[in-house]
Amino acid sequence: MDTSCIFCKIVKKEIPAEIIAETNSLLAFPDVKPSAPVHILIIPKTHYQDINGLPDDLLIEIKNLAISIADDKNMSGYRLIANVGDSAMITHMHVHLLSGIKKNRKV
Amino acid sequence: MDTSCIFCKIVKKEIPAEIIAETNSLLAFPDVKPSAPVHILIIPKTHYQDINGLPDDLLIEIKNLAISIADDKNMSGYRLIANVGDSAMITHMHVHLLSGIKKNRKV
Repeated sequence: MDTSCIFCKIVKKEIPAEIIAETNSLLAFPDVKPSAPVHILIIPKTHYQDINGLPDDLLIEIKNLAISIADDKNMSGYRLIANVGDSAMITHMHVHLLSGIKKNRKV
Repeated sequence: MDTSCIFCKIVKKEIPAEIIAETNSLLAFPDVKPSAPVHILIIPKTHYQDINGLPDDLLIEIKNLAISIADDKNMSGYRLIANVGDSAMITHMHVHLLSGIKKNRKV
């Protein structure tokens, strides 16, 4: 845990979030500043800065949870994004799950 | 192999591409319509539609190759994107590796 990390605070329920899905190791909740009609963040409960150093099994769990949420919400298409290093706004590993976006939207 | 698939044709060298990295199972080459100063596609040589059905070990290989390319090119930050189902323009699994993008760019 990183005591100053906003996502760690969400994991510890110190900051409220609408929990969309939860497993032993992961949490999914809406992005507070959505950039798509559906914009969900999936994070590991343990603090990792980004995909570097994230255990492989957790990456697979994140992928499987994304697929599961997409199935539950009947998404016919969606986009998964992971920002790494300087490209990440919050330095707690998270995957964006976006849906309701145009196919020809810029990546 | 899907004989009508443009990425399968690149794998078979029927369509030329500047190969940035190649492993037994993966190929990396520039996106022909870049949406960032660096825009690389990483694909499995075997045809899978998208992340659904992609073997887990290949997803980990893709992640590791992305990190390796980012290291080689001294990227301090980058974005990985996978489009799924209707959100994908080309129905051969690929991960976009984007760098030189703004931290506050819309996801």
